[in-house]
Amino acid sequence: MAELPDKRTAFIDWYLAVVEAANLSDKRYPVKGMNVWTPYGFRARRNLDRVMVREIEATGSQAVEFPTLIPQNEFAKEKEHIKGFDAQVFWVTRGGLSELDIPLVLRPTSETAIYPIFALWVRSHRDLPLNVYQIVNTFRYETKTTRPFVRVREIHFFEEHTCQLDEAAATERVRSNREAFRRMAHALALPYLALRRPPWDTFPGAHYTVAFDIPLAGARTLQLGSVHHYRDNFSVPYGIRYEAPDGSERPVHQTTFGLSERLLGAIVGAHGDARGAVFPSEIAPYEVVVVPVVAGPSASSVLPAARSVADELRAAGRRVVLDDGDERPGAKYYRWELAGAPLRLEVGAREVESGRLTAVDRLGRKAPLERAALVAEVGRRLGDYDAELLRRASEALREAISPAATLAELHDAQQVRWVGWCGAEDCGHEIEKAIDGALLGTPEEPLPFPLEPPTRCIACGRTEGVRAALAAQPM
Amino acid sequence: MAELPDKRTAFIDWYLAVVEAANLSDKRYPVKGMNVWTPYGFRARRNLDRVMVREIEATGSQAVEFPTLIPQNEFAKEKEHIKGFDAQVFWVTRGGLSELDIPLVLRPTSETAIYPIFALWVRSHRDLPLNVYQIVNTFRYETKTTRPFVRVREIHFFEEHTCQLDEAAATERVRSNREAFRRMAHALALPYLALRRPPWDTFPGAHYTVAFDIPLAGARTLQLGSVHHYRDNFSVPYGIRYEAPDGSERPVHQTTFGLSERLLGAIVGAHGDARGAVFPSEIAPYEVVVVPVVAGPSASSVLPAARSVADELRAAGRRVVLDDGDERPGAKYYRWELAGAPLRLEVGAREVESGRLTAVDRLGRKAPLERAALVAEVGRRLGDYDAELLRRASEALREAISPAATLAELHDAQQVRWVGWCGAEDCGHEIEKAIDGALLGTPEEPLPFPLEPPTRCIACGRTEGVRAALAAQPM
Repeated sequence: MAELPDKRTAFIDWYLAVVEAANLSDKRYPVKGMNVWTPYGFRARRNLDRVMVREIEATGSQAVEFPTLIPQNEFAKEKEHIKGFDAQVFWVTRGGLSELDIPLVLRPTSETAIYPIFALWVRSHRDLPLNVYQIVNTFRYETKTTRPFVRVREIHFFEEHTCQLDEAAATERVRSNREAFRRMAHALALPYLALRRPPWDTFPGAHYTVAFDIPLAGARTLQLGSVHHYRDNFSVPYGIRYEAPDGSERPVHQTTFGLSERLLGAIVGAHGDARGAVFPSEIAPYEVVVVPVVAGPSASSVLPAARSVADELRAAGRRVVLDDGDERPGAKYYRWELAGAPLRLEVGAREVESGRLTAVDRLGRKAPLERAALVAEVGRRLGDYDAELLRRASEALREAISPAATLAELHDAQQVRWVGWCGAEDCGHEIEKAIDGALLGTPEEPLPFPLEPPTRCIACGRTEGVRAALAAQPM
Repeated sequence: MAELPDKRTAFIDWYLAVVEAANLSDKRYPVKGMNVWTPYGFRARRNLDRVMVREIEATGSQAVEFPTLIPQNEFAKEKEHIKGFDAQVFWVTRGGLSELDIPLVLRPTSETAIYPIFALWVRSHRDLPLNVYQIVNTFRYETKTTRPFVRVREIHFFEEHTCQLDEAAATERVRSNREAFRRMAHALALPYLALRRPPWDTFPGAHYTVAFDIPLAGARTLQLGSVHHYRDNFSVPYGIRYEAPDGSERPVHQTTFGLSERLLGAIVGAHGDARGAVFPSEIAPYEVVVVPVVAGPSASSVLPAARSVADELRAAGRRVVLDDGDERPGAKYYRWELAGAPLRLEVGAREVESGRLTAVDRLGRKAPLERAALVAEVGRRLGDYDAELLRRASEALREAISPAATLAELHDAQQVRWVGWCGAEDCGHEIEKAIDGALLGTPEEPLPFPLEPPTRCIACGRTEGVRAALAAQPM
């Protein structure tokens, strides 16, 4: 089997090769950017969904589902929003054999599908807050090169939409969403930066946007998700109003929180290595792979022993696969390393005799494991593995960022750069030009490690109103 | 609050009123037949999905997901299939600001999306059987009157697609699917008829179709799902071939198994009554509603007692809602009956003192329940409730069907009719005309209760080759 490209020097090639070799997605579907979720990839997606659902429902949000198609007239109601999406939507113009009276948009995001109905659901302050989310597919007519999970035309999407009493309550929801994301990212062992995007990179129609970014390779970053404060920008055109306790009628303030299958791309990109994908245990299609090593005189006892290991772990709620196929053990190890399985248990004659299995985690750490303490030991190893994964990723995040004091230092950046910015749009664009990328924004939360606050704008040199910002090349 | 229409005499009005009053679906979305899944309705759907996933995965099927959009040329490859769906699909013709080179169909079902990829996945007899399923939304440009869950334009759909070695293996998969459906239907407390559809009502492109029908009111039936044997009708045009052990190349034989949100419509239609929806416990958004009855001197102990009841049940894995709102208890009882909650626990001062709660199930059966044995007792009551629900529905099924010996007896049918049919298409159409409906087909499995086998064709009077068949008015 061919070696993977080098992650450091050929990141994109490496990424595409890992997604294919791990069989996470099949991109041979005959529409560009619309990929097939394979059985293995779907398992990872299902586990990701479970984490998102668990954490958002812990904050009192309820699942709903709105239709996929949005009539053109509803789609066009908020002016900035339509401007932002007009060029990148698919249009349904025919039904059966006839032209539709009103063309329908395949949702690129669901504000304009949901808000006409919110206007019916919200009547009184007693209906607030209204916190609902949906996990659906969205569609974007992407003209750039597509990449599995990261830039696709049919997107597995998580979106929360909320209505709040006022601006302060909406600000509080943004904070609560940030906390929910912190818990989700922890389950994925992904460290990140929470940044307020500059105004020109704010979500179309939003008052402001906080996005979560992770550095991946060189100056390259990937946006993991975002939270938006809409104020009443949508509730006014869509008429989402409530009667306050004093009898007055007021528009709600709104927020949204968006995540997607990109999180799987981030897992591949951040944790993967020269041997393939590396899954955190909560997301791994299978947490444990049991490999019987059948050879020698006591071979006949091996397969039943391996089966009982798998059964016992399954009964304890673990996702386990027993790989009892014909390949030799080395080929299986290779394949499950490519696929990113967190823990491999080898069961051979020696293990059966000694009562100690050989356990190897995906970080290559090998140690015997007492068969008698199987379930507890596997839980401990996986917990330890996830912690080590997060530790390594956090170290990589720290190493990926460095301060820059002049625009010249941004050229050919091999890292994400920490710069001073006066807040002026012109200076922002100068920074973006210098790094050939984007000004990601200013930290909304303290960085996971301390960096000296900059004192002057890297573009104009001003010291007044200067703030720290990060510049990078988003994927 | 207004009374519901009468189920017997005004079934459709009653059905629509129950769906709305129980807040299962919001049909005010501005595209006809595309409805909003409310938080309450979505919970029922999620529980339904859980049952379908559990039972199909128990047969070794794996989840996948294929794209929503299908290129016109792939869609047109199987001639019968395209003929069957051409008039009822939505077409995407524009992407962004430009016309697409190849128009895309929103999948009405996914054969033509999946089979080009199956042709890549299947190489050898070792790749077979290939059993995968997906739960996705499908789209049909329905021109008839739409009804929530039962006839909609965006359909929450379950579809299994399989590839088998040969015709016999495919026949065996059809049987296994029928068994899986039996287990699903049992969880839904829905009795049904398994019928082989006549050739003119076979799925477009299939060799034969077995459908599951339930009588709902008068001669009205609802199709719950279907299983299709495709032989090699699709695998030949799509090139899904494998190398047999003897080195020869052969097309696979295929099957599919389809279910949808209709099952929720069937639950409403079959179990619902004059007081609203009636959910079997596995599907109920909440299995148990705890209502504190706060009145009198010891009121202050009631709310904590009610809360502890809800907490204990939740900890035991039950789906519970504590209705501690301001309404009077009677109004809450009324609302939760409309909503179909299986079991209501009333916690008042008397209950706190006696250590016995008042339990009322949705069939109106009231009995005290020992607080000390809460979890076990609730489990027992729900099991008993589900069994009674199935018993009543099975009795209704039996009463809904009666034999007819002449075409004249089919006019103004108030029941589903059991008739003799010689198998000729002309006679089939005569039967359909007489009942103003459809010949549902011939029993693929014995009916749940015995009926005398007919001896002559109800249309032509022939005795040769006569078989039993059911005629009805499908919704």
